[in-house]
Amino acid sequence: MTNEDRSQRLRELTREVVGTYHEIGGINRIGEKNLPSQAAVVSILEELLAVVFPGYHGDPLPMNADLEVLVGARLDAIARSLSAVIERTLKFCHQLDCQCEQLWQMVDETQEEKRFKAAAEYVTMAYLAQLPEIRRLLALDVKAAYEGDPAATNPEEVILCYPGVKAVSVHRLAHPLQMLGVPLVPRMMSEWAHHRSGVDIHPGANIGERFFVDHGTGVVIGETCIIGERVKIYQGVTLGALSFPRNPDGTLIKGGKRHPTIGNRVTIYANATILGGETVIGDRAVVGGGSWITESVPAGEKILS
Amino acid sequence: MTNEDRSQRLRELTREVVGTYHEIGGINRIGEKNLPSQAAVVSILEELLAVVFPGYHGDPLPMNADLEVLVGARLDAIARSLSAVIERTLKFCHQLDCQCEQLWQMVDETQEEKRFKAAAEYVTMAYLAQLPEIRRLLALDVKAAYEGDPAATNPEEVILCYPGVKAVSVHRLAHPLQMLGVPLVPRMMSEWAHHRSGVDIHPGANIGERFFVDHGTGVVIGETCIIGERVKIYQGVTLGALSFPRNPDGTLIKGGKRHPTIGNRVTIYANATILGGETVIGDRAVVGGGSWITESVPAGEKILS
Amino acid sequence: MTNEDRSQRLRELTREVVGTYHEIGGINRIGEKNLPSQAAVVSILEELLAVVFPGYHGDPLPMNADLEVLVGARLDAIARSLSAVIERTLKFCHQLDCQCEQLWQMVDETQEEKRFKAAAEYVTMAYLAQLPEIRRLLALDVKAAYEGDPAATNPEEVILCYPGVKAVSVHRLAHPLQMLGVPLVPRMMSEWAHHRSGVDIHPGANIGERFFVDHGTGVVIGETCIIGERVKIYQGVTLGALSFPRNPDGTLIKGGKRHPTIGNRVTIYANATILGGETVIGDRAVVGGGSWITESVPAGEKILS
Amino acid sequence: MTNEDRSQRLRELTREVVGTYHEIGGINRIGEKNLPSQAAVVSILEELLAVVFPGYHGDPLPMNADLEVLVGARLDAIARSLSAVIERTLKFCHQLDCQCEQLWQMVDETQEEKRFKAAAEYVTMAYLAQLPEIRRLLALDVKAAYEGDPAATNPEEVILCYPGVKAVSVHRLAHPLQMLGVPLVPRMMSEWAHHRSGVDIHPGANIGERFFVDHGTGVVIGETCIIGERVKIYQGVTLGALSFPRNPDGTLIKGGKRHPTIGNRVTIYANATILGGETVIGDRAVVGGGSWITESVPAGEKILS
Amino acid sequence: MTNEDRSQRLRELTREVVGTYHEIGGINRIGEKNLPSQAAVVSILEELLAVVFPGYHGDPLPMNADLEVLVGARLDAIARSLSAVIERTLKFCHQLDCQCEQLWQMVDETQEEKRFKAAAEYVTMAYLAQLPEIRRLLALDVKAAYEGDPAATNPEEVILCYPGVKAVSVHRLAHPLQMLGVPLVPRMMSEWAHHRSGVDIHPGANIGERFFVDHGTGVVIGETCIIGERVKIYQGVTLGALSFPRNPDGTLIKGGKRHPTIGNRVTIYANATILGGETVIGDRAVVGGGSWITESVPAGEKILS
Amino acid sequence: MTNEDRSQRLRELTREVVGTYHEIGGINRIGEKNLPSQAAVVSILEELLAVVFPGYHGDPLPMNADLEVLVGARLDAIARSLSAVIERTLKFCHQLDCQCEQLWQMVDETQEEKRFKAAAEYVTMAYLAQLPEIRRLLALDVKAAYEGDPAATNPEEVILCYPGVKAVSVHRLAHPLQMLGVPLVPRMMSEWAHHRSGVDIHPGANIGERFFVDHGTGVVIGETCIIGERVKIYQGVTLGALSFPRNPDGTLIKGGKRHPTIGNRVTIYANATILGGETVIGDRAVVGGGSWITESVPAGEKILS
Repeated sequence: MTNEDRSQRLRELTREVVGTYHEIGGINRIGEKNLPSQAAVVSILEELLAVVFPGYHGDPLPMNADLEVLVGARLDAIARSLSAVIERTLKFCHQLDCQCEQLWQMVDETQEEKRFKAAAEYVTMAYLAQLPEIRRLLALDVKAAYEGDPAATNPEEVILCYPGVKAVSVHRLAHPLQMLGVPLVPRMMSEWAHHRSGVDIHPGANIGERFFVDHGTGVVIGETCIIGERVKIYQGVTLGALSFPRNPDGTLIKGGKRHPTIGNRVTIYANATILGGETVIGDRAVVGGGSWITESVPAGEKILS
Repeated sequence: MTNEDRSQRLRELTREVVGTYHEIGGINRIGEKNLPSQAAVVSILEELLAVVFPGYHGDPLPMNADLEVLVGARLDAIARSLSAVIERTLKFCHQLDCQCEQLWQMVDETQEEKRFKAAAEYVTMAYLAQLPEIRRLLALDVKAAYEGDPAATNPEEVILCYPGVKAVSVHRLAHPLQMLGVPLVPRMMSEWAHHRSGVDIHPGANIGERFFVDHGTGVVIGETCIIGERVKIYQGVTLGALSFPRNPDGTLIKGGKRHPTIGNRVTIYANATILGGETVIGDRAVVGGGSWITESVPAGEKILS
Repeated sequence: MTNEDRSQRLRELTREVVGTYHEIGGINRIGEKNLPSQAAVVSILEELLAVVFPGYHGDPLPMNADLEVLVGARLDAIARSLSAVIERTLKFCHQLDCQCEQLWQMVDETQEEKRFKAAAEYVTMAYLAQLPEIRRLLALDVKAAYEGDPAATNPEEVILCYPGVKAVSVHRLAHPLQMLGVPLVPRMMSEWAHHRSGVDIHPGANIGERFFVDHGTGVVIGETCIIGERVKIYQGVTLGALSFPRNPDGTLIKGGKRHPTIGNRVTIYANATILGGETVIGDRAVVGGGSWITESVPAGEKILS
Repeated sequence: MTNEDRSQRLRELTREVVGTYHEIGGINRIGEKNLPSQAAVVSILEELLAVVFPGYHGDPLPMNADLEVLVGARLDAIARSLSAVIERTLKFCHQLDCQCEQLWQMVDETQEEKRFKAAAEYVTMAYLAQLPEIRRLLALDVKAAYEGDPAATNPEEVILCYPGVKAVSVHRLAHPLQMLGVPLVPRMMSEWAHHRSGVDIHPGANIGERFFVDHGTGVVIGETCIIGERVKIYQGVTLGALSFPRNPDGTLIKGGKRHPTIGNRVTIYANATILGGETVIGDRAVVGGGSWITESVPAGEKILS
Repeated sequence: MTNEDRSQRLRELTREVVGTYHEIGGINRIGEKNLPSQAAVVSILEELLAVVFPGYHGDPLPMNADLEVLVGARLDAIARSLSAVIERTLKFCHQLDCQCEQLWQMVDETQEEKRFKAAAEYVTMAYLAQLPEIRRLLALDVKAAYEGDPAATNPEEVILCYPGVKAVSVHRLAHPLQMLGVPLVPRMMSEWAHHRSGVDIHPGANIGERFFVDHGTGVVIGETCIIGERVKIYQGVTLGALSFPRNPDGTLIKGGKRHPTIGNRVTIYANATILGGETVIGDRAVVGGGSWITESVPAGEKILS
Repeated sequence: MTNEDRSQRLRELTREVVGTYHEIGGINRIGEKNLPSQAAVVSILEELLAVVFPGYHGDPLPMNADLEVLVGARLDAIARSLSAVIERTLKFCHQLDCQCEQLWQMVDETQEEKRFKAAAEYVTMAYLAQLPEIRRLLALDVKAAYEGDPAATNPEEVILCYPGVKAVSVHRLAHPLQMLGVPLVPRMMSEWAHHRSGVDIHPGANIGERFFVDHGTGVVIGETCIIGERVKIYQGVTLGALSFPRNPDGTLIKGGKRHPTIGNRVTIYANATILGGETVIGDRAVVGGGSWITESVPAGEKILS
């Protein structure tokens, strides 16, 4: 193949590929500025982890520094980055005729452009105000992990080495953002945690205190799960949907409670599958490894596979 | 331990370790140039993703740019990098008395050195010519994911956050390279996708349109699988081999159809295992979660675990 | 919200968050220098992989170089980095009233500060001395993977693309460090391998020669497992604990054999679960996919799920 | 000093420093977006050098690539970056009640915001259209340097190693931008060249073909110099102003011809100083090293210091 | 040359080179930790420039941020880095039997190790307290440059593009550190400025308000210069020593006033040389370009070369 | 301007620019591999500086390391990089019908391709063998600088902060490479030093022991200078050519002694200019600042400007 042939063929191919950018919808975004960048979201998440786990994540907090100034600068920077990401995401969603309009409508502003910005700042501050409570929850999760695993020799090991703890920590940070109605961003956070830990927790899931996921790879926790306190689950556990109701036109009905409810102090062993929005696992129940459960389990019962 | 003792002991250890480089075969490659580098393959894959998902992967395509020139430059660069990687890989395989000789023999060149280069260019251009068709398939896969998951609120979320979509996208890019007989490179691409998504699809698998893998962690799809259209599978599903026939000398017989055939519109729920090269799942069948299947299933049937 | 409001609210939030650094224990380490850094441990691990798999990991060893000098410099650098990390980890543990005191007490030094350093150097040299033996084991593991998978077309593919091989390789490097009593560091190595491969092998597990984990995602191998020679396991297999005995105060008893013993030439298919410290799988047994096993299996038996 | 003292004192100092941000003008720009970034300007300059000296600056142009596509992508990217930098600079200048308004007024646009953008695009395209002519000039400058220095053993050495050639090359790129009335940007380019080469050529200077600066450190060429063809100057030469006329209020009168005019084929040896806007050095004159000249020199004369 | 020959010769050479590390003194520092690193000093200097020229140097200060928190965090970080560098430098100097002992002796601490730290913190805080005054001086220097050069079209250009302004700015930051008796560090700062601007100002020089160096390349200002207010100098000017008195043993006498004194409102044109510690240039004098001056000049006089 | 207009105009411009790549010679190198890269040469130079100034340049040599192994690895790496750069440069020069053929002809090899490689290795080893002698010279240069400047408070300051010492150090490393006949590479080294220090020493200059350049900016030392021992020169000094003899066709005669000879213990003050290949400055002469010298000066004389 001569160099001229090669150039000729590549130019034709280019025209063809660019042609598909116009013909094939849904997988191109050209000249788009508002799609939130994965890198920006991950960077904010890492800064948040540095604030809630000082000394374990991010640059260490030095011995003789002014903590209020250092942490204040971190929070100020997070507030700006997060607000900018949310503002762009709201604009992006608005183009799609999304449901999140309600979010930025609660801010009283006449000019549309300013409404996005005001809504983003409002949400950002409401979110950050929850950080002290998030830290309280995280400390309890770490305690639960340390107390629940005989192989754990100190709590530091739990924070540094347990993928389940990492996934739950990110969930504690992503869930309040989801509750505030922010589109896409909390889902991008939870997917990052999924990739890092093998644990897939939808940011919409409602999870009680002292939650421990051991080993974790393959765990799936669906959007509408409700999980009580002191629950412990093992690798490969699915808390999923049983079946998806459809609209008359055959498309899936979006929304609705589709995933199970788990009581307090429940333990679910490896590879168990619990499905259905009306399935309830009662307090103190124990679900054996590999179980396949689509109906409710009374409190205190032990289910073997 | 004095500094002299330390040096002495490290020098002895060095001699011993270097000694094992000569004595122990199979895990050293010293002075080797032709082994494809994981970093180079991943970089090409990321460039390909930027071409097929413009605006979602890679640098964004700016608003007021000349798309043909920008995409043309990307394709020109991909063509050169990919051709160089394939050329080296062919040389590497040739040393091993590999089967891919047929690939570069189809190019009519007298000098051996030039044959590698000509074969690599031939394969590269034949591969890139499939990009428009690959984009058509990807758009259908994304549509299938969006329509198949009630939690998906917009198609952008599906492209950005669904590991199953990422794994299938990489498979769409790796499979044609595997079909062209290129050694190692498509396998390195699929392993990268495995690491990023938890979904292990062998690049040899033959997968129909509108394929959706939900959640995905722990999915394994073997080399000789044949999968129909509109198939949907969940986390932890294995499409694997039943047993491996052996040569008279006890070594495994390489090659042969070892993995199942899945019909159109089949759904396979979480952690199901389907094994065997002669196992066929008929059209519209539903395989329940946790099922263990080693024999064929008729069309339309529902298998509970 | 005015800029002054914003500053005011962020300053209050900062005070509140910094307040939780004092009130909430267990998830802060401020002004701490001795916690081993994940980045440092991973960097040492990558250097070790470059030494045991020359040409596959790390910078390639060039054709016309002086191997003894290049490898010597790598080992010298590893020795210094590893010794520094271990020294800090020993100091860190010492603050926690840990059990690893025995380790640095075996070194005869009068000043406490020097004892940490001497113990770290002692352990480092004892560890590095095992590298030739580790290389012997790795070559056998690679051979087992290549011979055990009909899809593997050459041993290079096995080293470059098989996550199970990567996980086992890291285990071969982390286990001797665990045996020497080094806290945290081997666990950080194995967690890195877990993240990269989906395979979770506790560095305490005792694993025989020619071990092969295929596909690998979701595999969990517990701390007190004993695994024989020529064992082969598939994705999703758990070798776990049955239940955790507790102290009279309700806390878990740390330590004790809790995970199963696997004989020689055993094969365990996908998603099988084997639990309990007294469970023994006899030589040449075959455990079917999805099996749930909590009692011993005699030699040679085949268990179907 | 206790940690509390330290924090207290740093907080007071901070308040004092931030106070000076309000009190002291002229050296703060807070919340400013339009100031052109030195990094952006240097990056554009390096891209331009890669276009005009292909293979010497920037990534090499590969053997078997499609030059039009590669160069087209470079020019497309330069056009976008340069246009964006110029647009910001025009906005920045506009705030200062600058003279460059005339530049963006020549573009017929009703909305002010769009006028900046349109003017920036207009200037960018007018500038880039001069690149072929710039390349012609550069080839002549390189030829002049090679022919003018007996120590030069090949033209490649001249392009790669001669700081004077680098400074003149940047001048050829910065001067047309200055002529188009772009504020700040050409000055930032010439200052970068000054730093890299020790040669300080104001982008306003008007320099004829085949210009050679040997060694170069300490050369200063003022804004209103006019230099003929085939001129050669050595290190330490100043072509400067004699004195600055002042306004009645004592401030300097900005603008006006203040620097000398140099004829064709003139040679000026090391450390000579030629001053004054009305000073003319005639064709073929030779100015000796260390001369101090404030009056015109007839054609063909030789001035000794 | 065989590979063995090559290794042999390189090993011999290595032994020889390492041998010279022991035999040749003065240019080796092996295992030395206390030598201040050029990179650390430059990084501190860049942070200081970002504090005194906000928006011109360093990351921009965003519009809606809390300035006190952001600047506070910068100052806190600078205080820690600078204190650490100074502490190491004091220890380094102490080994050399230096004169700076007086510095850390003024801090009342019993343990020697702590004295270094206390002295470093004392000096750091004393230095930082001068930043508001330094900013006042810098604003006057920038004003002098803008008013003194007819080619300057706005003050921003002066800050961004004038090497003389950069050199004087660094001097304003380095000089107070020199006055506090810190060894090496201010000299490393001024050498960085020398490299960046071609202007070599010794950090010991005492320079009055509104100082302007135009073009700047080749300017040298010696350690014991005293320069008045509103002085303006051009490229190539040397304010140097006349001759160096020697000790009876022939070595130079270190210290003593060796460089000239320049009055207020003096202008010194390009390449003038003024030498000698007793040479005084009177107020409002003008020194012509290329002058060679070794004796005092009365106030108001104009010296031609 | 519409986006289509813009694309159209940029495409035309691209064609025009690419057209000049074919029409205009001397400043393009397309598809060229053999031109030595500035980055590669600088990287080798920095490694060499780390070998000759251990602890001052490059990564520090740690306290408890095996120096022979660390330095051996550095030298091995330098030998490979330098040999590769020289091999490419020889090939590059060969295309130009250069004079350096003699260099690779002295190696007895039949195949041309191998001759380049053999010659490069031969030169590399001959060069590196001079490192111990280079270190001896460097120690004397540093001593001369420390003893010659009353402002120097310790030798460390001299190595770290004196640009003249940096320039002389690079000359000590570049000169032997020039003597071995290597084209381009030593010139690229000296130009890097020129940029870093303002001192332009041609690598061909022959300079005796204990050479000190103070301040340094603007110093030029020509290719055929011969400089004795214990010489000291100041900023702005030129040791240059008087005039260039020409061939009958008007081109310059390349080569020949064109620059002065300086005796032992000579001092040359700032901005002095000494020109001509037959000009000799006798031992112990002192040349005053700003002097202009084109004829020889007897030993011991003092020349005032």
